[in-house]
Amino acid sequence: MHIKIYDATLREGAQGAGASFSLEDKVRLARLLDELGVHYIEAGNPGSNPKDAALYDRLKRERLSTARLAAFGPTRRAGVKPAADRGLAVLLAAETPVVTIFGKAWDLHVSGVLGVSPQENLDMIGDTVAYLHKEGREVVFDAEHFFDGYKRNADYAMRVLETASQAGADWLALCDTNGGCFPHEITPVIQRTIDRFGGIIGIHAHDDTGHAQANTVAAILAGAGVAQVTAGGIGERCGNADLFVTVPNLQLKLGYECLPESSIARMREVSLVISELGNRPPDPSRPYVGANAFAHKAGMHIDGVKKNPESFEHIDPKRVGNERAFLLSEIAGRAAVLAKITRLYPGVDKNAPELARILERVKQREFEGYQYEGADASFELEARRILRPYPPFFALHNFKVIVTEPSKPERAATAMIEVTVNGQSEITAQNGNGPVNALDRAARRALERCYPRRREGVLSDYKVRVLDSADATASRVRVLIESRDDTARWTTVGVSGDVIGASWIALTDSLEYKLLKDSSEDSEVGNP
Amino acid sequence: MHIKIYDATLREGAQGAGASFSLEDKVRLARLLDELGVHYIEAGNPGSNPKDAALYDRLKRERLSTARLAAFGPTRRAGVKPAADRGLAVLLAAETPVVTIFGKAWDLHVSGVLGVSPQENLDMIGDTVAYLHKEGREVVFDAEHFFDGYKRNADYAMRVLETASQAGADWLALCDTNGGCFPHEITPVIQRTIDRFGGIIGIHAHDDTGHAQANTVAAILAGAGVAQVTAGGIGERCGNADLFVTVPNLQLKLGYECLPESSIARMREVSLVISELGNRPPDPSRPYVGANAFAHKAGMHIDGVKKNPESFEHIDPKRVGNERAFLLSEIAGRAAVLAKITRLYPGVDKNAPELARILERVKQREFEGYQYEGADASFELEARRILRPYPPFFALHNFKVIVTEPSKPERAATAMIEVTVNGQSEITAQNGNGPVNALDRAARRALERCYPRRREGVLSDYKVRVLDSADATASRVRVLIESRDDTARWTTVGVSGDVIGASWIALTDSLEYKLLKDSSEDSEVGNP
Repeated sequence: MHIKIYDATLREGAQGAGASFSLEDKVRLARLLDELGVHYIEAGNPGSNPKDAALYDRLKRERLSTARLAAFGPTRRAGVKPAADRGLAVLLAAETPVVTIFGKAWDLHVSGVLGVSPQENLDMIGDTVAYLHKEGREVVFDAEHFFDGYKRNADYAMRVLETASQAGADWLALCDTNGGCFPHEITPVIQRTIDRFGGIIGIHAHDDTGHAQANTVAAILAGAGVAQVTAGGIGERCGNADLFVTVPNLQLKLGYECLPESSIARMREVSLVISELGNRPPDPSRPYVGANAFAHKAGMHIDGVKKNPESFEHIDPKRVGNERAFLLSEIAGRAAVLAKITRLYPGVDKNAPELARILERVKQREFEGYQYEGADASFELEARRILRPYPPFFALHNFKVIVTEPSKPERAATAMIEVTVNGQSEITAQNGNGPVNALDRAARRALERCYPRRREGVLSDYKVRVLDSADATASRVRVLIESRDDTARWTTVGVSGDVIGASWIALTDSLEYKLLKDSSEDSEVGNP
Repeated sequence: MHIKIYDATLREGAQGAGASFSLEDKVRLARLLDELGVHYIEAGNPGSNPKDAALYDRLKRERLSTARLAAFGPTRRAGVKPAADRGLAVLLAAETPVVTIFGKAWDLHVSGVLGVSPQENLDMIGDTVAYLHKEGREVVFDAEHFFDGYKRNADYAMRVLETASQAGADWLALCDTNGGCFPHEITPVIQRTIDRFGGIIGIHAHDDTGHAQANTVAAILAGAGVAQVTAGGIGERCGNADLFVTVPNLQLKLGYECLPESSIARMREVSLVISELGNRPPDPSRPYVGANAFAHKAGMHIDGVKKNPESFEHIDPKRVGNERAFLLSEIAGRAAVLAKITRLYPGVDKNAPELARILERVKQREFEGYQYEGADASFELEARRILRPYPPFFALHNFKVIVTEPSKPERAATAMIEVTVNGQSEITAQNGNGPVNALDRAARRALERCYPRRREGVLSDYKVRVLDSADATASRVRVLIESRDDTARWTTVGVSGDVIGASWIALTDSLEYKLLKDSSEDSEVGNP
């Protein structure tokens, strides 16, 4: 059986407490989800939020390979024709192949919250779905509070679905909006709706009783064809069904087909990248993808797993790109690093002594607080410096940054920098709107003379995290910098006792990665 | 229906990654669990672990009012009589009214991991249970891997239970040791065992597929009488069924009796104390007791909850001692801001013109990139400056920060600062391991002379985000600073074109909040 995965991280996930993605984060997230092969990406609510509208504009330039983009919004307002409704106009202007419309399925809410009559609510739903259908959109109808509504007034809840279905909705997603339901309540309702409307039923589950996963599984077992999920389960209140738990549950444990096997093997990696994008520390006890999901602590468990992994592991961790760990030992991590190097340099001999050196280097750096999961460019540089050494493009002699307040914008900081490039010393100074910006500009200026053909690269994102330290008086800082030029994006990492030092390290890697990339592109062009 | 709660936090919970309780922590935890009214407390495995043996000695001095203490351990070894088995002697020496014995119910493990014949395994279980029963203990038999074993060899798994039951076991706890089962697999197995052994079945569920809660609920619905849980769900790998989720699910949602209602109303408080004891930050998205379990972010949700709480809350948060929160963000509306002000200043007139001014101010600040969702202290200051103005404690004249590289740690940055305090100018300079640290130290030094009685406050966390901006050449930076002293924690926010400027604003708010807090505490003491 094939199940469609409908990802709502960018919309519902952004409603999670603390979640805050920049526009470029969201674009990167959409690309990642598309790479995994999810079937739908709900990117936002453009009518309620000008930032989401800007995102849809930006996404028009992206070519997604598998995922169909969905714009999310409410039905037309009461007393307004669909063609005259501003909200629906904004949804259409997003130019997505799919539009997801939410409407109320609980009669009490219709009068008590929406303030319209039960019939007007049905009309709003029917008109809206029919209008969007006529405009050529695939229409998903999210039936808000469906299960709670069904408990109170099953007849009205079913009439809501009937209305949407007759108006041409392609999918009817039943929402446990408050997350208060249990599988034994979900199953019979799903069965009844499938009896009536066929296999166009989807499930949207919340985790307020700790049952988001279970309710999703129950709905699929009962015949639903679409699972709505978010990456890491982020969403309103306790969150939603988690993409990285739902898909392995359905595909590895219950035999459904959701995503390519190769995507499932990337689940842990992608979950970490998304945590980093959202600037949220990953949850180590998360099923399947958490650092501890296959970490054994009790001696008896470790002994059992060594004799027979099946004794304390319900699946092989490799299938989700995770790995077994024995806590209190230092052997975790090797497999992941090796897999990554083999992916970058497919020809590399697995027994080459360089691999052991890279492992040792990465282990040392991770001990210092580095984390390469979100910083592929820095990892690639580390591996390359050992596997295919290259002469450094430049070396820092020293820098000095001065920040003053009050100040004029664009001159809040001044950086003086001295670097050695091709054996020659270069001193430059630049102003910037902050210390990192000033350092970046000064460094680029210093490199310009020697590497004049460099295409313009810019910093596109910047994240800082304070790391815990055994020594509480001197916590360390990790900085992630995302850079881009007109052909690529890359992320680098730096760790230091202070934010400027850490930024400089990440900045250096970014510039070096760019120079390396340009020189290999040049040589590819020059020596065909 | 009455359900017994069997808490295993001190044993299984301590097997969770990162969990580490001191002896006194464990005693305090046992007292708390007893106060809540749990029926059993499994405190450890005294035979495997000398620390656990010491704990049982210590617990002999405690008088628990409701909970029965259980000592946990394996069956007798192969080929040894129970009375001669050292492990069983240690279990009896713990002098607990209850002993919980685990034994293997999956025949493959019996030979592959334990290394004994299927019959010898049955004999070890039978002998051990009979011996402890004869010694006057209430005996719980934990059937390890019961569900996995049942799938492979139902007959053998049932013979294991039969053996324990005939030997006098009071409870048969069926364990999903690997956490790989689903409710539709749990339910029929529980039903079959209840048909055969009556109402002495318990459930022990793990969260490896995100189903620990659902499998526990399914087992209870099928007739099981004991739920094994841990506080916060901590345990091996992904953890176990969570006490603070299981009990509200069973009692508030499904009508079972587990604990006194008054205990359930303390769930959030107790969950926070236990997090603190375990030195683990509480999970904000935890069902029922998490800080975000009733936190609403989308404007439509906030609007709905205000009209009718049932619209987006599956239970009244007060029933678990939690409370509703309205998160502030670009997707939240007026309602959230008003609700927050009313909570801070309950007496405030909803039509006061000051409220409109606060709203406008917050809106303006959010447009500039502020986000008050995670920065309650800054929000409170904004509201207070308009509602109950106070003379500022200090004003910045100017600062200058110099960062050099290479540098010595602790001197990477130097800050000079000039502030006006009580009409007097103060200039100070300090070194720091980074620019923010240096600024923080210089500012504290400048304030010391005028506010000498200030108790020490320190920065405890620091986060930076780069914000998108319509003007791509000058992106803005948002800094969140968490501070604490010995009585509280508070978070402040600053936004600026550069990281230092934004840090300074958040720092200023933090210092001001601390001074305001100290002065109101002082005046409470001074003017009773």
